[in-house]
Amino acid sequence: MSGTTGPVPSFAGYQSVIGHLQSALPHNGTRTSLITSIIPSLLHSIAQIAQILRDSHVISAQGTANSFGDDQLNVDVLAENAIRAAIQHYCPSVITASSEEHPAETPVPGDHHGPDPSTSEQYTLAFDPLDGSSIIPSNWAVGTIIGLWDGTTALNQAPATKQVAAILGVYGPRTTAVLAIRLPGSASKGICLELALATSSPGGSGGHTETWTVSNPNLSLATSSSGPKTRYFSPANLRAASSDPAYSSLISGYIQHEYTLRYSGGLVPDLVHALVKGHGIYLSPVTPNHKAKLRRLYELLPVALVMECAGGKAVDEKDGTAILEREVKGEDERGGIVCGTEAEVEKAMEVLLGKGSE
Amino acid sequence: MSGTTGPVPSFAGYQSVIGHLQSALPHNGTRTSLITSIIPSLLHSIAQIAQILRDSHVISAQGTANSFGDDQLNVDVLAENAIRAAIQHYCPSVITASSEEHPAETPVPGDHHGPDPSTSEQYTLAFDPLDGSSIIPSNWAVGTIIGLWDGTTALNQAPATKQVAAILGVYGPRTTAVLAIRLPGSASKGICLELALATSSPGGSGGHTETWTVSNPNLSLATSSSGPKTRYFSPANLRAASSDPAYSSLISGYIQHEYTLRYSGGLVPDLVHALVKGHGIYLSPVTPNHKAKLRRLYELLPVALVMECAGGKAVDEKDGTAILEREVKGEDERGGIVCGTEAEVEKAMEVLLGKGSE
Repeated sequence: MSGTTGPVPSFAGYQSVIGHLQSALPHNGTRTSLITSIIPSLLHSIAQIAQILRDSHVISAQGTANSFGDDQLNVDVLAENAIRAAIQHYCPSVITASSEEHPAETPVPGDHHGPDPSTSEQYTLAFDPLDGSSIIPSNWAVGTIIGLWDGTTALNQAPATKQVAAILGVYGPRTTAVLAIRLPGSASKGICLELALATSSPGGSGGHTETWTVSNPNLSLATSSSGPKTRYFSPANLRAASSDPAYSSLISGYIQHEYTLRYSGGLVPDLVHALVKGHGIYLSPVTPNHKAKLRRLYELLPVALVMECAGGKAVDEKDGTAILEREVKGEDERGGIVCGTEAEVEKAMEVLLGKGSE
Repeated sequence: MSGTTGPVPSFAGYQSVIGHLQSALPHNGTRTSLITSIIPSLLHSIAQIAQILRDSHVISAQGTANSFGDDQLNVDVLAENAIRAAIQHYCPSVITASSEEHPAETPVPGDHHGPDPSTSEQYTLAFDPLDGSSIIPSNWAVGTIIGLWDGTTALNQAPATKQVAAILGVYGPRTTAVLAIRLPGSASKGICLELALATSSPGGSGGHTETWTVSNPNLSLATSSSGPKTRYFSPANLRAASSDPAYSSLISGYIQHEYTLRYSGGLVPDLVHALVKGHGIYLSPVTPNHKAKLRRLYELLPVALVMECAGGKAVDEKDGTAILEREVKGEDERGGIVCGTEAEVEKAMEVLLGKGSE
C-alpha cells in the first residue's frame, strides 16, 4: 500500500494546469475547490497509479497469489486506494464516493472532519480505478475513468447538468489524462483538454517532482470542412455482430469504405485514440446473447461528457438518445454506447435502428 | 541526446536473466558474447527508449518543430541512437548493423577498435527502433523489433539458421520484452521468454538501478488439448478486405465464430497480446491496392522467429511458405504475413489460398 498515501502535495507542478483552467472557465470563483484541490488531487492519484502499474511486476513477485488474475486484483485495489486516499486527504468538498470496485455510494471519511468552511462546494465522485484489466497482462495501454457530480449523490440526478467534470487517466508509454469540464449555466459545450505528466528525480534529493502540463488545450472531434484524412472505427463487443444483422452490416460498411480499424479493447485508450486523431467512432452494442457490460455511472456517463465536451456525440445504441439524458437509478446499471464524431454516430445509428444502410 | 550514452553499465541487475539463459541454452560457452554482452546491452537500450518515450512531452516542448509528425521523428531518432550507442560501446562482436530508419548495412564503428579478442562470435543487427509511430500520439503501447544474425551480413543468408535471436521491446504501462533464441544445431524449437523491467531510484544516490527479470520463462502459443478459453484475432490492413473476398470471408468467419477482436495497429503489441494470452492470429494480407508495408528484415523475420520459438507459425500470406524460409535480398524488401497459433494459421491459409472456407 506504500505510495498510495503520503504528505500533502504542494501541487507546485500543477500551476500551469490550474492557471489554464482559471482562465478557461468563466465564473471560476465559485469552483475554487474543484480547480485548485480536486482536479490536482485526482491528477496526483493518476500519477501514482502510473507508478503502481510500472512496478506491478514487483507486486506480482511479492504477492501471495500465483495466478495473474489475483495479481490484477491487487493492482485494481492499489489503484482504488490511490484515488480514495487523494479525496480523503486533500478534498474536503468531495462528500460522497463510489467506484466500480465498490459500487455503493458512501460518505468520504475525510481526515478533515467536516466540510471545508472556505467553500460551499459539494461533490460526488464516481470512478473506475483501472479499466481494461484484460489487457494489463499484455502490457497494452489502460485507463482510469472518473466522473464528478455536483451535490451529495449521483443517483437520480440529471447527468447533463449535474455531472460537471470527467477525467480519463491514460497509462501507456507516457502518462496522460483527458479532462472535460462543463459547468451548469455555461452556454458553451464545455472544455476538453489533454494533459501530460512529467516526473523527474532531482539528483541527491531522494524525492521527485511531478509536473502536469496542458499538452492539448482543445481536443476536438469536430470534423473540419475538408473531412478527416483517415477515418477510424472501434467496434467493441464485435461478437454481437454474429447475431445482429444491423451491426454486422455496419462493420461491412466500414471495411468497404476503408475505415481504419483501431480496437484495443480498453474503453479509455479506444476513445482517447479518436480524441487525439480528431476522428473516430466507438460502438458497443448490446444483444440478448451479448449483454451490456459497461457501467453507466462509472464508465458511460463520464466518457459521454468527454465526448460532448470535445464536440462529439454519445448515444444509447438502443434508441439513439443521448447517454447524458437518462438518470442513473442504481450503481450497477449497464448499457451500450455509440460515440465519437457526430456525423459518424448519426450514420451508425441510422443503420443500427434500421432506418438506413451504411 | 543525453541519456542515450553513458558509463558502461555493470549489468548487475541483469544477472537473473543471464543466469537463466546460461542454463536454458545448451553449449552456451560458444555464445558468451551473445548472452553476457549483446542481450544485456540491447535490454539496456530498451530501458532507455522507455525513458525517452516517457519524457517525450518534454522533447515536444523543447523541439523546434510544432507539428507532432516532426516530434515523432525526434523520438524515432533518439530510439535509434540508443540502440546504436549500445552496440557501439558494449558489443564488439556486433560487426554490422542496419535499421528501418537507415536501411543499409554498415560496419559498426565501435569504440573497441577491432573485434573482441576473447571471442570468435560475429553478429549482424537488424532493427526497427520504434515501431507503431501512428499510435504514439494517442499514448498506446508501441515497440522495438530487433533481429540478430550470425555473421557479418543478414543479406542472402538462410534466415531459419542464421537469424539466431530476436527481441521485442514493449512500451506500455510497464516496460517488458520478449526474447527468442534458436541456435543452429539445436534440435529444439528454441526458447521464448518474457522479461520485465524494474527501475528504482535509491534515495540520495542520484542514480538508479535497472533490473530485468524473467517474468515468463516459456511464452507458448501451443494450444492445450482442451483448447483456449478465448480465441483472439488481429486483422491488420483490414481495408484490403474491401477488395479481397477471401480476406473478407475470413473476417466474417471470425465474427461468426465469436473470436475476440484485439487490434492496436502496432505489430509488437498485437503479437505480444497473442503470446501472453497463449492464443491468437495476426493477419496482414497484401492486395494490388493495399501494398505490403512490413519490412522483411526489420519486422517480419524477427517476429517470425519469435512466433516459431513460442511454438507458433509465421507464413507468407501469398503462398503459405514459412517467413523464415526465404532469404532477404535487400534491406527494403516488404511482404505480408499470417502468424500466431499454428492451427489458426493453417485454417486461415486454407481460406486465403482458396482451398477452404472459414
